[in-house]
Amino acid sequence: MAELSLEQASAIKEAREIRHATRRSTSEGLEAILFEPIPVLDHGFVRVVDYMGNDDAVVQAARVSYGRGTKRVSEDSGLIQYLLRNWHTTPFEMAEIKLHVKLPIFVARQWIRHRMANVNEYSARYSLLDREFYVPAPDQLAVQSMQNRQGRGATVGPEEAEHVLRILSDDAGRSYDHYLEMLNQDEQGNILDQGRQGIARELARISLSLNFYTQWYWKVDLHNLMNFLRLRADPHAQYEIRVYADVILGIMEKWVPLTFGAFREYRLEAATFSREGMIALRRMLAGEKLQQADTKMSKREWDEFITQLQIS
Amino acid sequence: MAELSLEQASAIKEAREIRHATRRSTSEGLEAILFEPIPVLDHGFVRVVDYMGNDDAVVQAARVSYGRGTKRVSEDSGLIQYLLRNWHTTPFEMAEIKLHVKLPIFVARQWIRHRMANVNEYSARYSLLDREFYVPAPDQLAVQSMQNRQGRGATVGPEEAEHVLRILSDDAGRSYDHYLEMLNQDEQGNILDQGRQGIARELARISLSLNFYTQWYWKVDLHNLMNFLRLRADPHAQYEIRVYADVILGIMEKWVPLTFGAFREYRLEAATFSREGMIALRRMLAGEKLQQADTKMSKREWDEFITQLQIS
Amino acid sequence: MAELSLEQASAIKEAREIRHATRRSTSEGLEAILFEPIPVLDHGFVRVVDYMGNDDAVVQAARVSYGRGTKRVSEDSGLIQYLLRNWHTTPFEMAEIKLHVKLPIFVARQWIRHRMANVNEYSARYSLLDREFYVPAPDQLAVQSMQNRQGRGATVGPEEAEHVLRILSDDAGRSYDHYLEMLNQDEQGNILDQGRQGIARELARISLSLNFYTQWYWKVDLHNLMNFLRLRADPHAQYEIRVYADVILGIMEKWVPLTFGAFREYRLEAATFSREGMIALRRMLAGEKLQQADTKMSKREWDEFITQLQIS
Amino acid sequence: MAELSLEQASAIKEAREIRHATRRSTSEGLEAILFEPIPVLDHGFVRVVDYMGNDDAVVQAARVSYGRGTKRVSEDSGLIQYLLRNWHTTPFEMAEIKLHVKLPIFVARQWIRHRMANVNEYSARYSLLDREFYVPAPDQLAVQSMQNRQGRGATVGPEEAEHVLRILSDDAGRSYDHYLEMLNQDEQGNILDQGRQGIARELARISLSLNFYTQWYWKVDLHNLMNFLRLRADPHAQYEIRVYADVILGIMEKWVPLTFGAFREYRLEAATFSREGMIALRRMLAGEKLQQADTKMSKREWDEFITQLQIS
Repeated sequence: MAELSLEQASAIKEAREIRHATRRSTSEGLEAILFEPIPVLDHGFVRVVDYMGNDDAVVQAARVSYGRGTKRVSEDSGLIQYLLRNWHTTPFEMAEIKLHVKLPIFVARQWIRHRMANVNEYSARYSLLDREFYVPAPDQLAVQSMQNRQGRGATVGPEEAEHVLRILSDDAGRSYDHYLEMLNQDEQGNILDQGRQGIARELARISLSLNFYTQWYWKVDLHNLMNFLRLRADPHAQYEIRVYADVILGIMEKWVPLTFGAFREYRLEAATFSREGMIALRRMLAGEKLQQADTKMSKREWDEFITQLQIS
Repeated sequence: MAELSLEQASAIKEAREIRHATRRSTSEGLEAILFEPIPVLDHGFVRVVDYMGNDDAVVQAARVSYGRGTKRVSEDSGLIQYLLRNWHTTPFEMAEIKLHVKLPIFVARQWIRHRMANVNEYSARYSLLDREFYVPAPDQLAVQSMQNRQGRGATVGPEEAEHVLRILSDDAGRSYDHYLEMLNQDEQGNILDQGRQGIARELARISLSLNFYTQWYWKVDLHNLMNFLRLRADPHAQYEIRVYADVILGIMEKWVPLTFGAFREYRLEAATFSREGMIALRRMLAGEKLQQADTKMSKREWDEFITQLQIS
Repeated sequence: MAELSLEQASAIKEAREIRHATRRSTSEGLEAILFEPIPVLDHGFVRVVDYMGNDDAVVQAARVSYGRGTKRVSEDSGLIQYLLRNWHTTPFEMAEIKLHVKLPIFVARQWIRHRMANVNEYSARYSLLDREFYVPAPDQLAVQSMQNRQGRGATVGPEEAEHVLRILSDDAGRSYDHYLEMLNQDEQGNILDQGRQGIARELARISLSLNFYTQWYWKVDLHNLMNFLRLRADPHAQYEIRVYADVILGIMEKWVPLTFGAFREYRLEAATFSREGMIALRRMLAGEKLQQADTKMSKREWDEFITQLQIS
Repeated sequence: MAELSLEQASAIKEAREIRHATRRSTSEGLEAILFEPIPVLDHGFVRVVDYMGNDDAVVQAARVSYGRGTKRVSEDSGLIQYLLRNWHTTPFEMAEIKLHVKLPIFVARQWIRHRMANVNEYSARYSLLDREFYVPAPDQLAVQSMQNRQGRGATVGPEEAEHVLRILSDDAGRSYDHYLEMLNQDEQGNILDQGRQGIARELARISLSLNFYTQWYWKVDLHNLMNFLRLRADPHAQYEIRVYADVILGIMEKWVPLTFGAFREYRLEAATFSREGMIALRRMLAGEKLQQADTKMSKREWDEFITQLQIS
């Protein structure tokens, strides 16, 4: 997992020890884990760095209230469910969370496509990168999926896996050695060879591979967090970003339990049927036995339809 | 000023009395005024409802730090000034504030043009509006500006002022009476006339005038707050939105004093010169005495140029 | 309908007569109606002022293609359906449309909440507003809905309708008369009374009512247009914005017929079922006869569920 | 430069040969170069794929006009200058351009930070990447800057340059060889070794280095394009993104010559002075001879101040 340096670990420990008094509402679930890195992949992590509001903030904003906005938990829960079910998105923009994430660059490239968030990334123009790169676990080394042009299928055999892992490790290791060599520095920033100058950091980094780790502060509101999670916790998302989404789902559950429950009920585990799907559904409920040929759905849509209904 | 109902005032009082322990950083300046309405115009207010981060959050994000991110105040201040001077905007997106604002509808229409913020507005489709409308103070009743096609010039005479104020008051009052009449309700929501049905709220409200008050929760990050303030605290902004911006400048100073100082130094009281302006400036520093005709500036630009330099 | 001045009508006619040669792809459906105002409500309109791309642009971007991107219509159509069904939203951001809309201010206030669009509104700080305000047709004067706290129910009786319409007309007319009086101008901008000064435009307008017309240029990409239409062409949207959405649906169909078809199939006429809804559905398909009490759905959710399935 | 395949070149040629009639306004400057790739770096390019509006669109939107919106070129030019000088940004959002860009991944990572744009990137999860990577020209191989923690200083000597270039080329070449080996494919997509399975594309790509080329469709409005150019055509921007910005400046000049002129005058070649800078400036104009110590400016600010004024 993410090996923090002593300095980093002690900065986190120190930050966790301080308590302030505040008039703002707090989330007990988040306070308990605040600043603590939660490991993801081989060297990554997610840690909650700050937050604003909780389930109350959603209710309060929906009611444009002068006080806490809440009445009873059951009413709040009903209101939150109503808002989510009916796509009233603005109240969910009123709660905010800030995460510090360490992640491979190729994951960062997918993640950044969610534009409605604030990001400050560690700059390899200013600072030296660490020798940390992602190598998949052997059970994640899979062939190209046959059904899905963008996904993975079955795991490759142990021999091929070993071969691939050696390539990935060797190339990343060599790439980092060359990075230092071109910089003419060691990992502590000391000059290697007085006879050379070394090139600028912004140049030396360009030959590092996409599995090197970067890190950033990422701040997002609850509405846009749910958009992110709906797409990235989905089985079609690449495994390496999905594991981050899964960790963040756990964080969300601690933070805003009522919203999390509604999100699971009306988004994550909900299903949408097309116009043709609805026509088919109504016929089936009226007792008809349907095959794909009886509908206007394509083979692919029909398969998805059948899968959603869990019938065969 | 904003006359809060007893219920509203006691909801605020109650909220202010509760203190929580938190690991998050706090802003003493904001904690002191949290939830308290600051009066603006005749019935409006601004009150801070929540916030996330302070000057430290800017520094922390710029450094992608594991701890507080700060070293000494002087270093933090220097970093913040550097970031602002060089248009490094993303660290300022890492602090967030949420305000509850009561404001005339015509002010809300200007305010909402700042899209990079989150808004939940009181809905006149769901709820009854109060009998509260803005009438300018007599010293704000001014003629159309001659220099500025969108601004105000000198104050009108007392007789004309009185006439205008009577129109504004009478029309708004009548408009509210008719609003209730069309709803067939009184201000407490009781039915007025059993023989009539009353029309829907979403229809009755359409004849209220633009000086009626609305209210909303408005949440914005520090970077976008500064964009808002730069445009709306400017002398060219309409007076009625400028007074809100001025109040929020005061809030910003309490919240993030280092950023506020840098904002004043490098934005609010900074001056920008065009290419032609720079050419003129260099000639003047070399000892030339320039008139407009010696430059390529238009009359208007030249006047602005001279005004900025405070020379005549 | 929107009475254009002679000058406006002739500007439109003139613009329509000019043809240019372009290498860009065009939309025949939009070229035919370009610049022509389509009437909405009593004085409003929508007219297409410019556009960029068509269905091809979606396909081209999805394929990051060097040429037209398209192969056969059937393949394009399949790709567009696939993209929409699987929430691949970015290709739909690659087509753009610009509309000139004349609309009542209270409609503009709902419309502007869609932030992912570009807007230039006619400024009543710079220019005089016209004597044009919205008065509902008698069959639109309805009571507050009992089911829906924000909607309308049945139409009110003819006598009450007449009374309401008179209030709306009289108040708006008087409000415009007073607007001119406070400005000390007539509708052509001539001074009314040499003995008075008149107040600034930015002040005089504040007593106009929310049913006065404003106008703006509104530019949006196809993805965000669909978000707008899904919410505003919905039966829960207020009638006065829904009629604009309906007109724009017609424009969209002319512009991007393949995307429009997919949008109807997978969004407009699709249905989403919650986790509990899916459980109930599977039980019903297995032959069970269910009542609300057999499920965990609330009364309201059950009613929506039954309505979507069109069973009783 | 960008070696297009025969198929790509002929798709471009074919697209360029077609002319359509349109009622929309066109830009002659852009029509002339539409679809043509303009080379950047060793294998990259920028080509204009579509556009909407020109200088007229800015004027038209500012005036919310019914016709072309323009009167005379001199008036339009004055209006555009006024808008830009006074930060009226929304009219510039009314013109839009779409580019197809081929660029190294490390450049794409900087570029994507501009969130107010639409992007469709070539997906290495779906498709095979080409053997194309960026290797700097020898005169771009520079040491870390002493003044600027993020920039470059003087060029390194020829021997060190040669050494670095060999590392960069060798590592990227090997990394591509291994990419194919892990995929078990050749560049044409043929299976290499029937005895192996090959791993999924989304995995194999993770060991490619950051100097490999990617490509995307990028669509942006004129206002946000200027924000991009102001930051990325700046001397502090990394050379490899600056050369793209420079090419796009040239495109902008062809597209919207009036806006380009105003942009150069009031942004690119304008200078901003802080409050302290203005105080110093006024003293100097009054005849004082100032040193840094006479002001409150830091050494760094003073140096920038002196540089802007081009005095010593």
